[in-house]
Amino acid sequence: MGLWFTEKQTENFGITAKVNRTHHTEQTDFQKLDMVETAEWGNMLLLDDMVMTTEKDEFVYHEMVAHVPLFTHPNPKKVLVVGGGDGGVIREILKHPSVEKAVLVDIDGKVMEYSKKYLPTIAGKLSDPRVEVRVADGFVHIAESKKAYDVIMVDSTEPVGPAVNLFTKGFYAGIANALKDDGLFVAQTDNPWFKSDLIRQVFQDVAEIFPVTRLYTANIPTYPSGLWTFTLGSKIHDPLKVKEERFFDIETKYYTKDLHFASFVLPKFVKDLTDK
Amino acid sequence: MGLWFTEKQTENFGITAKVNRTHHTEQTDFQKLDMVETAEWGNMLLLDDMVMTTEKDEFVYHEMVAHVPLFTHPNPKKVLVVGGGDGGVIREILKHPSVEKAVLVDIDGKVMEYSKKYLPTIAGKLSDPRVEVRVADGFVHIAESKKAYDVIMVDSTEPVGPAVNLFTKGFYAGIANALKDDGLFVAQTDNPWFKSDLIRQVFQDVAEIFPVTRLYTANIPTYPSGLWTFTLGSKIHDPLKVKEERFFDIETKYYTKDLHFASFVLPKFVKDLTDK
Repeated sequence: MGLWFTEKQTENFGITAKVNRTHHTEQTDFQKLDMVETAEWGNMLLLDDMVMTTEKDEFVYHEMVAHVPLFTHPNPKKVLVVGGGDGGVIREILKHPSVEKAVLVDIDGKVMEYSKKYLPTIAGKLSDPRVEVRVADGFVHIAESKKAYDVIMVDSTEPVGPAVNLFTKGFYAGIANALKDDGLFVAQTDNPWFKSDLIRQVFQDVAEIFPVTRLYTANIPTYPSGLWTFTLGSKIHDPLKVKEERFFDIETKYYTKDLHFASFVLPKFVKDLTDK
Repeated sequence: MGLWFTEKQTENFGITAKVNRTHHTEQTDFQKLDMVETAEWGNMLLLDDMVMTTEKDEFVYHEMVAHVPLFTHPNPKKVLVVGGGDGGVIREILKHPSVEKAVLVDIDGKVMEYSKKYLPTIAGKLSDPRVEVRVADGFVHIAESKKAYDVIMVDSTEPVGPAVNLFTKGFYAGIANALKDDGLFVAQTDNPWFKSDLIRQVFQDVAEIFPVTRLYTANIPTYPSGLWTFTLGSKIHDPLKVKEERFFDIETKYYTKDLHFASFVLPKFVKDLTDK
């Protein structure tokens, strides 16, 4: 069989993937980082033994984090990504010509360094002149920003390790202050099969701060359960009321105008998590 | 670690689940059958080492196979299930009061036998008076049926082993003959990440026979990639044109009226498989 990577997504269930070779492995100041070449998914970035992104299926996550909020805002100019050191969300953001500046704040510079080296199709736009990369604590950056951003995307790891503060109500309140008066944000909020309590809690916390709170999903095969959720909080603009003329053609493999709306139509057991 | 089941969903990728105990294992006349108790998914039925259904996530597949076609047909009375010996599709069909008779034709009686014993919440309705169970070859049953059914559901295994005939154009032509003049059918057609060629071929074959051909998806975490597709072929009725008044409340955990329509909105790379 050779070398296989196995991620225990729960105590009792996981995925396993054949590894051709390990490009790099190290304990950074914040987490364990592994870059491996898999036979099925191409190069794969692991943080603390969890799949963060792979060359083959990364487009789903990155397109869905970026384009849903960016098309919801009528004219996004200044955008912040918290986490997301692999650069995939930045790449998608830059497809929107209204964006003048995209700031990426990741706490771990090593993620950017090794993504540039081994995930060039994902991280290749980190050096774009519209992009500002800061190696810093996203929680602190949010707390220090006032009415600074049109759109904020929280592209974090799981709520363990360095990202634990990014799933608190205090963080969402900070995001509200860091956004302009018509700003909106989106955060990845894990999967409804194994983390239903988390989704319910985050949705409730965000809904207490943002007048418009919506949950949407996407299929990501290398993430637990294959069904991922994103929680969107907005001061004014509603992703379900985006007008036809707002959309324009961009090159995507997952996101479409029709899927923008359909991704908010939830399976009943997921919809139930958003009810009070 | 103890005992773990691993399914190689491709040569280079798979899922793995902790097994508490094996209830039953045998080589039937048609396939290898294992019934195991997993820690994550409850009891799990395996055929030829592939996950067929589990107590925890079975509702997705069974609801989506049954309710999408049954709400599309204005008045389904006689329904056929090919395969589906675990009884889950039958359970969902019986939630529709218009249905007078549901015929289940599975080639392997052992599937029914052990599903009744170890999956009672799934197989419990196989003894309902509206149900007729036949242990027979579905391909032959279809070939011998003429204008007999309002709706046919093909709940088969993968296109290897006993189900290989169920993915041929000749089979779909047989289904057209077995359906009444306004009949429709649905077949499970695997996942778009690893089996895109299969989906494209089936869609093209069905579209050459049925005026209305549509692809829809559902998230099934224990199936390869977590994103499953269903191909629906219909002589007249269009699942996208079901009128509001056709729907009525049924108890479900996944299917909703809104999801009926949203499940046909495909990610771009999946939609591309349905283009000529």
